[in-house]
Amino acid sequence: MQVILRRIPLLLFAALLCGHGRARAEDGYHLWLRYRPVQGQWLAPYRAAATEVSGAADSATLLAAQAELTLALGGLLGTTPAVTDRITQDGAIVFGTPRSSASIARLRLDLGDIGTDGYLLRSTSLVGHRVIVIAGNDDLGVLYGVFQFLRLLQTRQPLAHLDMKSAPRVQLRLLDHWDNLDGSIERGYAGASIWDWQKLPGYLDPRYTVYARACASVGINGSVLNDVNASAASLLPLYLRKTAALANVFRPYGLRVFLSARFSAPIEIGGLSTADPLDPAVRAWWRAKADEIYRLIPDFGGFLVKANSEGQPGPQDYGRSHADGANMLAEALAPHGGVVMWRAFIYSQQQTDDRAKQAYTEFTPLDGSFRDNVLLQVKYGAIDFQPREPFHPLFGAMLHTPLMLEVQLTKEYLGFATAMAYLAPLWQETLDSDTYAQGQGSTVRKVIDGSLYGSAHTGIAGVANIGADRNWTGSHFDQANWYALGRMAWDPGLESAAIAEEWVRMTFSNDAHFVAPVVAMMMGSREAVVNYMTPLGLHHQMAYGHHYGPGPWVNDAPRADWNSTYFNRADAHGIGFDRTATGSNAVSQYAPEVAARFGSLDRTPEKYLLWFHHVPWDYRTASGRSLWDELVRHYSQGVDSVTGMRKTWSGLAAYVDPERYSQVAAFLAIQEQEAKWWRDASIAYFQSLSNLPLPEGFGPPEHSLQYYEALCFPFVPGEGGKHSLDCKR
Amino acid sequence: MQVILRRIPLLLFAALLCGHGRARAEDGYHLWLRYRPVQGQWLAPYRAAATEVSGAADSATLLAAQAELTLALGGLLGTTPAVTDRITQDGAIVFGTPRSSASIARLRLDLGDIGTDGYLLRSTSLVGHRVIVIAGNDDLGVLYGVFQFLRLLQTRQPLAHLDMKSAPRVQLRLLDHWDNLDGSIERGYAGASIWDWQKLPGYLDPRYTVYARACASVGINGSVLNDVNASAASLLPLYLRKTAALANVFRPYGLRVFLSARFSAPIEIGGLSTADPLDPAVRAWWRAKADEIYRLIPDFGGFLVKANSEGQPGPQDYGRSHADGANMLAEALAPHGGVVMWRAFIYSQQQTDDRAKQAYTEFTPLDGSFRDNVLLQVKYGAIDFQPREPFHPLFGAMLHTPLMLEVQLTKEYLGFATAMAYLAPLWQETLDSDTYAQGQGSTVRKVIDGSLYGSAHTGIAGVANIGADRNWTGSHFDQANWYALGRMAWDPGLESAAIAEEWVRMTFSNDAHFVAPVVAMMMGSREAVVNYMTPLGLHHQMAYGHHYGPGPWVNDAPRADWNSTYFNRADAHGIGFDRTATGSNAVSQYAPEVAARFGSLDRTPEKYLLWFHHVPWDYRTASGRSLWDELVRHYSQGVDSVTGMRKTWSGLAAYVDPERYSQVAAFLAIQEQEAKWWRDASIAYFQSLSNLPLPEGFGPPEHSLQYYEALCFPFVPGEGGKHSLDCKR
Repeated sequence: MQVILRRIPLLLFAALLCGHGRARAEDGYHLWLRYRPVQGQWLAPYRAAATEVSGAADSATLLAAQAELTLALGGLLGTTPAVTDRITQDGAIVFGTPRSSASIARLRLDLGDIGTDGYLLRSTSLVGHRVIVIAGNDDLGVLYGVFQFLRLLQTRQPLAHLDMKSAPRVQLRLLDHWDNLDGSIERGYAGASIWDWQKLPGYLDPRYTVYARACASVGINGSVLNDVNASAASLLPLYLRKTAALANVFRPYGLRVFLSARFSAPIEIGGLSTADPLDPAVRAWWRAKADEIYRLIPDFGGFLVKANSEGQPGPQDYGRSHADGANMLAEALAPHGGVVMWRAFIYSQQQTDDRAKQAYTEFTPLDGSFRDNVLLQVKYGAIDFQPREPFHPLFGAMLHTPLMLEVQLTKEYLGFATAMAYLAPLWQETLDSDTYAQGQGSTVRKVIDGSLYGSAHTGIAGVANIGADRNWTGSHFDQANWYALGRMAWDPGLESAAIAEEWVRMTFSNDAHFVAPVVAMMMGSREAVVNYMTPLGLHHQMAYGHHYGPGPWVNDAPRADWNSTYFNRADAHGIGFDRTATGSNAVSQYAPEVAARFGSLDRTPEKYLLWFHHVPWDYRTASGRSLWDELVRHYSQGVDSVTGMRKTWSGLAAYVDPERYSQVAAFLAIQEQEAKWWRDASIAYFQSLSNLPLPEGFGPPEHSLQYYEALCFPFVPGEGGKHSLDCKR
Repeated sequence: MQVILRRIPLLLFAALLCGHGRARAEDGYHLWLRYRPVQGQWLAPYRAAATEVSGAADSATLLAAQAELTLALGGLLGTTPAVTDRITQDGAIVFGTPRSSASIARLRLDLGDIGTDGYLLRSTSLVGHRVIVIAGNDDLGVLYGVFQFLRLLQTRQPLAHLDMKSAPRVQLRLLDHWDNLDGSIERGYAGASIWDWQKLPGYLDPRYTVYARACASVGINGSVLNDVNASAASLLPLYLRKTAALANVFRPYGLRVFLSARFSAPIEIGGLSTADPLDPAVRAWWRAKADEIYRLIPDFGGFLVKANSEGQPGPQDYGRSHADGANMLAEALAPHGGVVMWRAFIYSQQQTDDRAKQAYTEFTPLDGSFRDNVLLQVKYGAIDFQPREPFHPLFGAMLHTPLMLEVQLTKEYLGFATAMAYLAPLWQETLDSDTYAQGQGSTVRKVIDGSLYGSAHTGIAGVANIGADRNWTGSHFDQANWYALGRMAWDPGLESAAIAEEWVRMTFSNDAHFVAPVVAMMMGSREAVVNYMTPLGLHHQMAYGHHYGPGPWVNDAPRADWNSTYFNRADAHGIGFDRTATGSNAVSQYAPEVAARFGSLDRTPEKYLLWFHHVPWDYRTASGRSLWDELVRHYSQGVDSVTGMRKTWSGLAAYVDPERYSQVAAFLAIQEQEAKWWRDASIAYFQSLSNLPLPEGFGPPEHSLQYYEALCFPFVPGEGGKHSLDCKR
């Protein structure tokens, strides 16, 4: 058989050679914990600063700290430092707590302000030797300190005059895995679930340990293992034993397991006829279930609950309130120290009011009626993880209820794994927003870190983008969102650019010629997505169901507020959702200062324009251009940004291994195509309504509107089994 | 927070250290193509025998051959040989065809009997130098020769007097992937599908190349990409473009793509109102679809079809025969050289006759009525991939129809990925079986290799056990079944033990202290499973639906022949399925010599006893023991075998890297538990009917029958989304 030569993949043999054999493949598996050799000017001072590791690893966590130190220093410095029980030379790394380490006890460090999870790093002298101390009040603080110390080396920071303390400003720093027990992941774009339930508890995949290390390295301290659209099966003894095995692996790393609890579990696996939260048998069932869980997992974190939302069961099925439901579960967990994270993401099939208003309407009357160990988990915006949303009005409205921030790492609405979108700027934008709840300066950040309302519980949760793909997150750059989630949850005051720079240095290279352009590319990446998908405050314009690609024309979904047209309200005259007093009056859910701004066409920030206002096509924007022209310009700018990202990346091949270089390049090419598709399809649709010509210099869509509307994508990942060949939408 | 020390996983830190960093992790990713350094006595002669690589790599396939040679020799010998265009020294490896290589042309080798895929390996002299020639008539033969040459090094064979020729005895050597477009795999136990449909064609995962290399290394030359329970979406242009991208990656390795075709696709994606194979519009639709496919994929292999079986659409929906359906597709493919592989695995909802008889009843009348490019793909036995089945009666009954053998690598019925079961002995048992179709010596092997009936087409297909797990197959030892499938399809006369030894040497170690016990363990592993699951001819005794664990009591499945009791027919008096003339008379479907043997209680091999006979509990077996005692003894022997495997493995830690050692050890521990569960549950059930005491020295089941019946396993992998909390079965 003569082989037909058709586009022989030229990279094929390069990939073959570099993916194999001699050198370690740069496949992303080791995340930002690569610990590749330090070169150049930094090697000598780092070697001098880390000659030995000194401390008693008398707990699993300190053992993990010590193992990480020796592993990392061995990799970074090319020589594994000796582990000693006392300081024998200059350059000792002394780690521990005042309890575990006599050296640290002797220093009488002021550790009063760093709590249980914080750490202190200090260059000092001990028994006549230069040492670096990594200290905490508790073992976990030491582990966190070790990772911070290693980060300094990984990012080439000077070690000579170390003197820093850090403690987390948020208590619950969680990943929410939307993983199903069959291995599928709702809205997952990085392969199957990393939890191999079938082989648990008999087999503990080494990957679980890498996951726990990665989480601990950025301060993540909890993992909700299963989808919020939960199966009651997760609460069966069979699965609790498997969960307990994971908890055992995670425990040394300070990572606690949580479960999404299905509200109707007492019926489905408990044999009861009701799940009414006021029914004594139901309450007893949950108490017994909590007791059972804590017998297996003494440090179990608690339950995450999606109730009475998108078809999930909940207390309203029995005429009870969300507070009744949450409090019942909280009561069961309270004796064990667990919490309930009750999701505020609800909107009703019956309710015809603006979907953006419904969570506020539902929950504000309940403020103050939740038990102490309940947190309300609120998405950053009132719709659903859009590329840009104004902050959720609940953040300024629940003064007596601890509010957790929920963000989404998996890019359900931002182009899936192949699109580059560094999300920390989005989160920072939310955290920077001023609710005016207690007057000016009442930022979401202060709500979330508890300082505004004096909350007893605080938390930030990110819907995980993690799967069994070798690089964990489906793309190399999506790892940055996992990294940033942890860093920003630890300290919501960190700048997203600074986090990006840390990550780039640890993950790719410390070469300034690489770091600066890549950080810039990352920092612009989310705005690029906003521009080519949903500029100027547009939202929820994606295709139906799978959410892949544009669908501004979607108007026949089974419920009104699943339609794109519900949100864009575009017609011959204009576009946008009037949420002022003349419309749904969603602005009234904000504090008066905010409501006045968002309610005013002139004062609304243009990035939120069409979120709050229905605006005629010829409306003059700040630039002096008409809204129509500005819209086209934004879409096009989004495409141009991605073209620019491709160009930036193509100039950086010399600084990256070929394996990662080629994957990122391929993904950016895909993203550029998809950006153009979004732009062209959106313009084609809106032009069919506005009947306006494109502004000078902007090319027409490549295809007709009919072409875009007819595109059909069965079996796009992330839908969790809901697939259809019916492509009318 | 004080960390609670609960069973700190001791292997955790070992895994952390060895899984990371310095040395390459032995995670199984490189399969049997590891190319680790040769040590000891073999290094010097191998280095002398392979000093340079000489040949013109003027095609993609020869480029692949050359790349593999340099990669492998570099790894094995520690120094990458130079690639030269002429022979410059002793030890040149001269590869190519008489067309590509002047050196090979000059040798005037007799390549007349090796066809297009065969190869010749010879030590000889050329231009005054000692050389090794790797020659083929065609480029692909050269590539296969390269892999054989490397296998000799990998298994430490002498190279001094090489003189071998080999050509495949079977034309189609295929993997059938039961992969769905959403990434799930029906009966898959190794993670998600390796086909990342969402990212294709824009991104070509380097893994596709490793897959193609691995297939080529054992002679596999085709890959059916999607599940036989197919979605019509695979035939949409969207997916054909993605398939074409995979075909481009595979092409240099001689690996052709095939698709499972959904019979009703003309309705579902073609807009027709019928899929009647005699309807001209339907025929035209398939012809156009075939033309479209071949425009994208000029070497497309053809269609695999599951029709009118287990709910799949097919020609009988329109009152047409299987031949009508197959011939319509064959007609569409014929102009392009494609084939139809029509599955004989059918049994009817309506049909009440013994399920084991139905395929024969259906297909024998059609013998001779299929088009030339149709093969009938027949499972090794008449039920469904059981640990042991007598050979399928169709193998002796279709003299005018090419018959392909279908085996299953994924261990749907053999304990999933964690159970060790080397399957080549099972396949060899089938191939060795004598159909007597043309008198004594009419083995299944001769049917399959075409020599018995003079078939124009031949093929062996294995249902793949491959997924996105890092080790590809869910366990290290399951790789051996992928390896063996290719080797045995190339030459169905190979001994399964010899194949196992090759694989062990290439994959683990050439140390005789390791090779001998591991090969012995592998060779006994399938019989162990037979014994603890389905001894003495029992079959189809697993749990309903997911097929995980024992379920001999299953009697309420939605159709009779999905029940275990349908197959075991156990009652107070005896056990077994009477398939003699007094029963279903399935024996009559075999040639008279075979029918006489299987039909006789005395002459039936005891391993098939309960397949063909209903036998009283007190029946005297060959050992002199009663059937009941013998049954208990077999179950127990299965458990003991696994215990022995664990013991064997635990003595081999010194010869294996800790990463693979610990995974295999963990899996064997799981298998031992599951073997005991199978034994105990089966004995508990059958004892509830036989009311007989256990023979002396055999312990009672650990739990009651009620306990085993109540065990419930929701979300076991491999069911493809059909999950339920209903555990009554």
